Amino acid sequence: MSESKKSLAIFALGGINEIGKNMYVIEYGDDLFIVDCGAKFADESLLGIDLIIPDVSYLIQNEHKIRGLIVTHGHEDHIGGIPYFLKKLNVPVYATRFTLGLIELKLREHKILRESTLIEIHSKSELDFGEIKVNFFRVSHSIPDCLGIVFNTPEGNIVHTGDFKFDYTPVNEQNSDIHKMAKIGEEGVVALISESTNAERPGSTPSERKVGWHIEEAFFRATGKIIISTFASNVNRVQQIVDATKKTNRRLALLGRSMVNVVKVARERGYVDIPDWMLVDSREVRNLPPERVVVLCTGSQGEPLAALSRLSTNNNRDVKVLPDDTVIFAASPIPGNEKGVSKIVDNLFQLGANVIYGSASNTGMHVSGHGYQEDLKLMLTLMKPKYFIPIHGEYRMLHKHRQLAEAVGVERGHTFIIRNGDVVDIQHGEARQTRQVPSGDTYVDNVGDDEIVDIVLRDRKQLSEEGMLVVVVTINKEDGNRISDPDSISRGFVYAKGNEELIGNVNDVVKRTIDPFKEANIMGMKRAIKKEVGNYIFEQTKKKPMILPIIIAV
Amino acid sequence: MSESKKSLAIFALGGINEIGKNMYVIEYGDDLFIVDCGAKFADESLLGIDLIIPDVSYLIQNEHKIRGLIVTHGHEDHIGGIPYFLKKLNVPVYATRFTLGLIELKLREHKILRESTLIEIHSKSELDFGEIKVNFFRVSHSIPDCLGIVFNTPEGNIVHTGDFKFDYTPVNEQNSDIHKMAKIGEEGVVALISESTNAERPGSTPSERKVGWHIEEAFFRATGKIIISTFASNVNRVQQIVDATKKTNRRLALLGRSMVNVVKVARERGYVDIPDWMLVDSREVRNLPPERVVVLCTGSQGEPLAALSRLSTNNNRDVKVLPDDTVIFAASPIPGNEKGVSKIVDNLFQLGANVIYGSASNTGMHVSGHGYQEDLKLMLTLMKPKYFIPIHGEYRMLHKHRQLAEAVGVERGHTFIIRNGDVVDIQHGEARQTRQVPSGDTYVDNVGDDEIVDIVLRDRKQLSEEGMLVVVVTINKEDGNRISDPDSISRGFVYAKGNEELIGNVNDVVKRTIDPFKEANIMGMKRAIKKEVGNYIFEQTKKKPMILPIIIAV
Repeated sequence: MSESKKSLAIFALGGINEIGKNMYVIEYGDDLFIVDCGAKFADESLLGIDLIIPDVSYLIQNEHKIRGLIVTHGHEDHIGGIPYFLKKLNVPVYATRFTLGLIELKLREHKILRESTLIEIHSKSELDFGEIKVNFFRVSHSIPDCLGIVFNTPEGNIVHTGDFKFDYTPVNEQNSDIHKMAKIGEEGVVALISESTNAERPGSTPSERKVGWHIEEAFFRATGKIIISTFASNVNRVQQIVDATKKTNRRLALLGRSMVNVVKVARERGYVDIPDWMLVDSREVRNLPPERVVVLCTGSQGEPLAALSRLSTNNNRDVKVLPDDTVIFAASPIPGNEKGVSKIVDNLFQLGANVIYGSASNTGMHVSGHGYQEDLKLMLTLMKPKYFIPIHGEYRMLHKHRQLAEAVGVERGHTFIIRNGDVVDIQHGEARQTRQVPSGDTYVDNVGDDEIVDIVLRDRKQLSEEGMLVVVVTINKEDGNRISDPDSISRGFVYAKGNEELIGNVNDVVKRTIDPFKEANIMGMKRAIKKEVGNYIFEQTKKKPMILPIIIAV
Repeated sequence: MSESKKSLAIFALGGINEIGKNMYVIEYGDDLFIVDCGAKFADESLLGIDLIIPDVSYLIQNEHKIRGLIVTHGHEDHIGGIPYFLKKLNVPVYATRFTLGLIELKLREHKILRESTLIEIHSKSELDFGEIKVNFFRVSHSIPDCLGIVFNTPEGNIVHTGDFKFDYTPVNEQNSDIHKMAKIGEEGVVALISESTNAERPGSTPSERKVGWHIEEAFFRATGKIIISTFASNVNRVQQIVDATKKTNRRLALLGRSMVNVVKVARERGYVDIPDWMLVDSREVRNLPPERVVVLCTGSQGEPLAALSRLSTNNNRDVKVLPDDTVIFAASPIPGNEKGVSKIVDNLFQLGANVIYGSASNTGMHVSGHGYQEDLKLMLTLMKPKYFIPIHGEYRMLHKHRQLAEAVGVERGHTFIIRNGDVVDIQHGEARQTRQVPSGDTYVDNVGDDEIVDIVLRDRKQLSEEGMLVVVVTINKEDGNRISDPDSISRGFVYAKGNEELIGNVNDVVKRTIDPFKEANIMGMKRAIKKEVGNYIFEQTKKKPMILPIIIAV
């Protein structure tokens, strides 16, 4: 392939028209870079499925080109797929110190830490891959140590923002590298790939520090024990909780596996400052006066197995919720989680606790990590891109983000609203979107390692909605003559008691269906039973249970 | 029973610790009054179940006492259970003219209108049942013709508010009868039963008229077709849409079965004023210039089968969404419906429409029909009850409502936070809560008339989450000796391909389990197979599929 025919390809394998499983690819000639490898939690319509990760068949086909996986930050929707991915493609992983700490937790759990290649980078790192050079800039977000990425290519600079907001009064110096961003914009950006989560929200994202003020106020008011729940990965919020704990002269117990693990990583690597005297084991809580204790726990999203849920039903052995305790949700419920959170609030009120919950606008106990419209416009203004690719959002967010881009000067028609798999090709400075690569969902089941194929899911759906009917009949293997009366068993469809007549009629249908067969044609009999019994059941009940004929030839 | 031993009982058969299926009972001696008979939509955890209605076994046992069902207003959570209830207990139904119109629609659908006894009342009606007299007062809500109820009993006045807000600038004169409420309070109220839906929200509920201003503004701005969706039963909002349609010189098409039906009832009975010239059939829409049309449709909650959802994928034969059309959601998404609404917004943007959507605080296109904290305090202040029973809400709302009651002077300890089935008994002016009556959920399945028993639901849940494994083996009916090799079939559990080994091992487990049997003990064999195969599968896969052993004795 001659130099002049090379083009630069940008596409997503996940993260577009969805929140979750982010994975983006920048490809130029024989160099391919992956940005992030996230997972998405399955919703209830996918029965018994826990995680969804990107379909990476394109990457498997192009394994020889992959130069590395670059990770912008340590949230699940950006790192959750990494263990499953590395088991398929053992490529080098580039990430900052804190992000690597979280990735290592996962790889250790999956027992593949030793054979993985992890390379620590920081916002001033410069990676040289020959024709492509990669630089970084620091962005603010709701987790420490986040990066934006600049791919310096023969076609010009391609900028990927990662997840970001602008926070002018950040906690722990996690501020945005705004001067560097300005410099990149001055150099020229051919394409900006920018996140769109809050493109629907007018104004600017409030500073994380605002949450600290509200936490401090609530701590000063509290008379009994304080139980406070937030995202473990929001280490800057954890720092503010630690600071308020210090000011009110309390001690701090950590509850919940991910809280303990993430705080450990953050302390070891210097992202949170907790004095040793402050920490107590949760078993010590009962021995301390309530007004001297803060319990920091997981479960702010109402997760039924997390610490806060157990506390709300007083099912934790060591920590009990008492009247006059204060329970604080230092996180807004993510849409879809309201019911789980509400149930926990109900239970906590029944235990007599004072509960601070609800939307951030009422409590002040949460701010978003994603830039609102003014933040997004600032990024667009700094980068002045020729082309714009909004990512990380559902269609209406990408659509709103395009409107913002046009408002600050991106030319009409220079924004590409892509779907997962759609490729934007840039050649000789001109961008087009005409082709696609394979993309999709890969399911990970409860146990963790199995990928479930679609047919099992489809079966589960039918079973769950319509139930099933097993029809058993025994035939002579020589001539196909029926030996036994048919027998039918239903599950999740109708209750057998009171439906003897229906079941009896089904057995008559089975007889009429297979008796005309003159040989032991098992497949033919099964097909005929499925059809005839299915029709009969539908006529009678308007239901379509799974019909499972079992023919025993003896 | 001597007069002095009679007590007045107040309880709920539905509506407490839930939103939906409201049903309250006032019982004094041999007189029993039912207030409302609602239904609740099942959430996704109840697989394939559509509706939940109250368990009325207590009422069936006490049928001879029932004097009637009094209905406060026509929302589904207050009337949805009526057809199912009347099929069990054909009692007289008292309701206002508009509410009766909606009830009649349901009874006609269920083909029981003719044999039902429907009695029209209004806010000035007085019903005399001997010892008990029943009066009413008008309340504002998000549907016309709503009542609060006063039971005048030998123990004093019991007031049930129905659903309410205070609206000082109502549409169509649907204002609250605040003077009558003041008079009732002056007479004395022994117990107030008041709704709690918005007890968590500070301030006063905005007036419905505010929505009208925003609708009008959006109509004046719109250039193409206007498609606007709201709750069909919110007739006052429909009136404001009609008024804005008139002002912008457009014509109006109705889309969606419930919109057509409810508007018909409302027009016939005088609750909405739509000039004949304005209405066009939806088939005419394509023949009119877009700027001359308003389409008023159902589906504001993202319901997948409603009109707006079909429009968003351009699946309606008559009405097409074109670029520059304006689509307005004149209703906030109810928690839990956000995903469905978002999907529709995404689709509408993809068709090029201008979409006005999101929370009421951003769009102004919705106000609640339920009183905020200041409204609830006004009702408590007007009624000055001795005892207070907050209803119509989940625990945290009842809890907040109690705090409001105490703030305006209800004595501590005089508020009863009850659960469904808990009885508050009032005797000689003193209230106690010590006993319970049976209560619970009754499920109504897809087809509409069957009540599903719990075992079927439990089966569906297991089937959906873990799948199932059918194990078939043939034995000699004389001596129990196995005739065939066992055969196993799995569904929704593991995919057979690639799991031949597991299935093979299961068959070995079955052999080892039943071969020691020395007789054709079918039940014993089934139990043993369930246990042994279940254990083996769990060891190997950490899953618990439903194990269904089938033993054929020939």
